[in-house]
Amino acid sequence: MKNIILVGSGNVATHLGIALQNCNYKIVQVYSRSIKNAKKLAQKLNTNFTNDLTELKSADLVIVSVNDDAISSVLSQIKNTPLVHTSGSVGLNVFKEKFTNYGVCYPLQTFNKEVDINISEIPFCIEGNSLKFEKQLIVIAKALSNNVVKMNSQQRKKLHIAAVFACNFSNHMYSVANDLLEKNNIDFKILLPLIKKTIANIEKKKPKEVQTGPAKRKDTTIIQEHIAIIKEEEIKELYQKITDNIIKLHE
Amino acid sequence: MKNIILVGSGNVATHLGIALQNCNYKIVQVYSRSIKNAKKLAQKLNTNFTNDLTELKSADLVIVSVNDDAISSVLSQIKNTPLVHTSGSVGLNVFKEKFTNYGVCYPLQTFNKEVDINISEIPFCIEGNSLKFEKQLIVIAKALSNNVVKMNSQQRKKLHIAAVFACNFSNHMYSVANDLLEKNNIDFKILLPLIKKTIANIEKKKPKEVQTGPAKRKDTTIIQEHIAIIKEEEIKELYQKITDNIIKLHE
Repeated sequence: MKNIILVGSGNVATHLGIALQNCNYKIVQVYSRSIKNAKKLAQKLNTNFTNDLTELKSADLVIVSVNDDAISSVLSQIKNTPLVHTSGSVGLNVFKEKFTNYGVCYPLQTFNKEVDINISEIPFCIEGNSLKFEKQLIVIAKALSNNVVKMNSQQRKKLHIAAVFACNFSNHMYSVANDLLEKNNIDFKILLPLIKKTIANIEKKKPKEVQTGPAKRKDTTIIQEHIAIIKEEEIKELYQKITDNIIKLHE
Repeated sequence: MKNIILVGSGNVATHLGIALQNCNYKIVQVYSRSIKNAKKLAQKLNTNFTNDLTELKSADLVIVSVNDDAISSVLSQIKNTPLVHTSGSVGLNVFKEKFTNYGVCYPLQTFNKEVDINISEIPFCIEGNSLKFEKQLIVIAKALSNNVVKMNSQQRKKLHIAAVFACNFSNHMYSVANDLLEKNNIDFKILLPLIKKTIANIEKKKPKEVQTGPAKRKDTTIIQEHIAIIKEEEIKELYQKITDNIIKLHE
């Protein structure tokens, strides 16, 4: 498995393409529905490009990195070839009966085209429709990353939800904090040591064990004072909801 | 201001006592309502101890590090002396008219007696009842930390709420994620690279600018799927609430 086609030209396709080339895989073609984007990535990778899925060359592996919503439609236009998608949310069943060798290669990371990423630290979650094909996928993933795990579609969906809580939702907590501080002329950076300490704690212990704060202590005086001080109705409700949830978890 | 009394023997008092001694301040006495705890910390600091506030020696500064609820009652038993409390939530007005020189020295960090802390990186928020006394407090804080800021009681309360969101609430997001992964035999450690990337992002940009995920994209298909998959009613509600909040913030 050395010749690879990238279907998609977004963040994941871009980072995977560069990393695969660095590991001596050959990207033989890039597809994007936008010919401009296909060309842009193909130039970066010094390879061919197309915006027509019926013109895909033959290759050892096709990597489909398009929006979740578009995967089904893209697959319907690809002839039988070994292939994977890179989505956390879409199950293996999206490939149905049409393909002989298919799987998922889900890199668990926020990708951004503009920012360099150390791909070797990114967890890759691998699933194949057969043990043999899965092994081949694992070989490729291990060339890219030191953190490769086998994971079925059900687990991957749960992992995606967990990632929404741990990353998207925690980032929103930082947004709310930032907003509150900005309105009071306090630099958000003052919170960084505390935020980093929180992360250092969960590297060593379970998050539940290192929970602190008024909700954990059931300090209703402070909780009521905080809710009274917060001006925005929806932030009041958010504070109350998460507080109730922490109190329940620690009962 | 070289001779200091510690009122309290908990996490903050312990770490402050050790750090102050390391900076050549002299801890002349430790008070705790529990004589056992007073003795324990006094032995660590090689100093005197008492469990009777009427027996406090005279000192340049008394640092009151007791539970928020107990501050008022402790102050009522202390004769006029220069003093500070270390709480984020309690205002300067707790000192009322009784004292001549008083203030707040609030270290913004989660303290744990068992874990060593690099106190020099901890932000210290300082407030004094006079410019002169505030300057003296800043000198002490700067001996301990490279991160000293002046902050009034109103700002400090807002900062405390922001810290609840950024640390206590984000830690709860990790707890929910951990719980979901444990139930599906997935190691929580798989999320650490993504969590660390989220922190790396907010060191460089505003949290709102680096928000990602289904809520940010208004991807209702995935949002509904996630809510359907989550089993616990209160976690479903939490997912929905935070999602609504993110969508509203990014409108």
